[in-house]
Amino acid sequence: MGFDPGSAVFRVHEGGKLSIRSTLPLTDRDSLSLAYTPGVAEVCTAIAEDERLARDYTWRSRLVAVVSDGTAVLGLGNIGPAAGLPVMEGKAALFAEFAGLNAVPIMLDTTDVDEIVETVVRIAPSFGGINLEDISAPRCFEVEDRLRELLDIPVFHDDQHGTAVVVLAALRNAARVTRRELGDLRVVVSGAGAAGVACTKILLAAGIGDIAVADSKGILHSDRDDLTSVKQQLARTTNREGLRGSLHDAMAGADVFLGLSAGAVSEDTVRQMAPESIIFALANPNPEVDPVVAHRYAAIVATGRSDYPNQINNVLAFPGIFAGAFDVGARAITEGMKLAAARALGDVVEDALTPDYIVPTPFDPRVCPAVAAAVGEQARLEGVALEPVHV
Amino acid sequence: MGFDPGSAVFRVHEGGKLSIRSTLPLTDRDSLSLAYTPGVAEVCTAIAEDERLARDYTWRSRLVAVVSDGTAVLGLGNIGPAAGLPVMEGKAALFAEFAGLNAVPIMLDTTDVDEIVETVVRIAPSFGGINLEDISAPRCFEVEDRLRELLDIPVFHDDQHGTAVVVLAALRNAARVTRRELGDLRVVVSGAGAAGVACTKILLAAGIGDIAVADSKGILHSDRDDLTSVKQQLARTTNREGLRGSLHDAMAGADVFLGLSAGAVSEDTVRQMAPESIIFALANPNPEVDPVVAHRYAAIVATGRSDYPNQINNVLAFPGIFAGAFDVGARAITEGMKLAAARALGDVVEDALTPDYIVPTPFDPRVCPAVAAAVGEQARLEGVALEPVHV
Repeated sequence: MGFDPGSAVFRVHEGGKLSIRSTLPLTDRDSLSLAYTPGVAEVCTAIAEDERLARDYTWRSRLVAVVSDGTAVLGLGNIGPAAGLPVMEGKAALFAEFAGLNAVPIMLDTTDVDEIVETVVRIAPSFGGINLEDISAPRCFEVEDRLRELLDIPVFHDDQHGTAVVVLAALRNAARVTRRELGDLRVVVSGAGAAGVACTKILLAAGIGDIAVADSKGILHSDRDDLTSVKQQLARTTNREGLRGSLHDAMAGADVFLGLSAGAVSEDTVRQMAPESIIFALANPNPEVDPVVAHRYAAIVATGRSDYPNQINNVLAFPGIFAGAFDVGARAITEGMKLAAARALGDVVEDALTPDYIVPTPFDPRVCPAVAAAVGEQARLEGVALEPVHV
Repeated sequence: MGFDPGSAVFRVHEGGKLSIRSTLPLTDRDSLSLAYTPGVAEVCTAIAEDERLARDYTWRSRLVAVVSDGTAVLGLGNIGPAAGLPVMEGKAALFAEFAGLNAVPIMLDTTDVDEIVETVVRIAPSFGGINLEDISAPRCFEVEDRLRELLDIPVFHDDQHGTAVVVLAALRNAARVTRRELGDLRVVVSGAGAAGVACTKILLAAGIGDIAVADSKGILHSDRDDLTSVKQQLARTTNREGLRGSLHDAMAGADVFLGLSAGAVSEDTVRQMAPESIIFALANPNPEVDPVVAHRYAAIVATGRSDYPNQINNVLAFPGIFAGAFDVGARAITEGMKLAAARALGDVVEDALTPDYIVPTPFDPRVCPAVAAAVGEQARLEGVALEPVHV
């Protein structure tokens, strides 16, 4: 690694990775008078009289802002808005390639929660949805909660919910393969950052009753006095058995290990798990459990890496979730819509499940349409879809 | 006019007018690992170590934010951010079509100067330049001044400076056609809004000594007690003869009328102008002086309309100005760069000048490259261009 302008990575990034074009050629007076003045004034006037028409006659209803302050970029940490931009460009490129949506990286020159919220609210009329990305915990929770409260467009922190949706889809299929019920699984979640918190919540919502969450100091429980408010809440809703101690202690007899931190887990710890266990070791590039070790004990192993089977990749979720929300003009992305996304994602491969094939590959063309359809349908059922404008 | 979904205008606007695509297909594992994780981490790390590399390896160095609060949209006035979006999409489409630049509309849900400035500063790491648009006067002056002060990327209020550059180019050629010197012209500017202020300033900078500016209350002079600070400054730097009274009074013996408001001017008033006069009546869609009337008295007539000769259209200026600034990594767009743009724009047609051809047509392919080259060269001369990163 290092700066090598001749390398394939740097050559691919020259000039950036996104391009904006006009959807119609503006090559003569007629096209200019339709798309710009004087014609555009008619469209402006119509929207000024009925703002719902902006959905049909501007690009914003299918436009995502990929918003980041650059504080938790990949495994690189707080590298700031300029250095984080290539990742957000990549994310926007994924929205385009996987869902045909438009997406714009918005890098923020502030890490203050109030300022982030205020800024996104002020630029929100430009966009149809907000994808929060790589904002460090615990600030990311408050930013998302407040934006969901203040805006009537989808707000989605992908590091939380994208991961959670794919994990749930994969775990549901892993349970199918090993012929167990989700409700019978005892799960250990390692990591209580953005992904750990969201995965725990969606697993609880999906019916998994027994989850122990561990952060770097050990198992979360209500007697700990070093917990943020988000972790306090997790401590209250998890750890039914009142476990104390380290991650190692939590793992005794566990059916599922869900690794969402960079903390390595030793073979001794893995060895304690229940038979037919399920190991999702999602840290990149180095999974918490070495896949070779994991396979010695587990029936099913998933990682975040593209060079192993069962890759847990957010790209399986976020393009379809936003596409589905946009299709029906959803005002929010609800918990129900996330659960629907996970079900639809898992069901794409239900007829072909094996221990090495519990989720579709990222390039499976069935994924985005299936997720989008389920999300849109759920939005309609919950009444968060916009009524069509009757004209 | 009115909302007619079957009309050509509304059909052209369906789904909006912009599209964002990935510059490379992300169709397999290899492309994904180069453009996204894990490859992108190398680019992030390099930029974190030397932010100047963002110029080469992100899209921002050729990306314009078209920023508006929707308070002064076309002739429609304060229609708000949603209703203003189709115009800003059109503007972004023009950047794409005429200069190959990327541009994103940013509609602001605030009209407060402090909040506008603060918001643009916070999102600035996402962009290579800021094009302010359709922000009402006098707030637009303070917004631009403060952003120029706070940011080290080009900030350009097109309603001011785009118009000013094209007006200067056209007036310089009108003087050539009528064999006069710019410095000998007595000019009347009608309108002291964004365009009026900027045109007056650039004409002064270009050597026109005698300008009288009139707003809706009459000629600006230092004894008036109803002037904003911007108009007070104009009153001090114009009106060498100390004129008092109405626009009608100012027009007696004037060589040039520059109309930048919707205020109609009667034939009686026009009749008073000097022989061989020059009339730029730029209000759209209804020029301040009816072109038929104008031609009875003037040697040269220009309007803002595409169906008459000599169309004063900002698209002759802003694409090339931003392209030139970006080409050399300019940290600002200086007065000198605007003057250079006007010179280059006028010179495109210097060998073919006639009274009906004092500016190129908007679709002349020579314009953008000529303006960009002149602007870039001037930036280098003034030392506001970035040094290349030596690697």
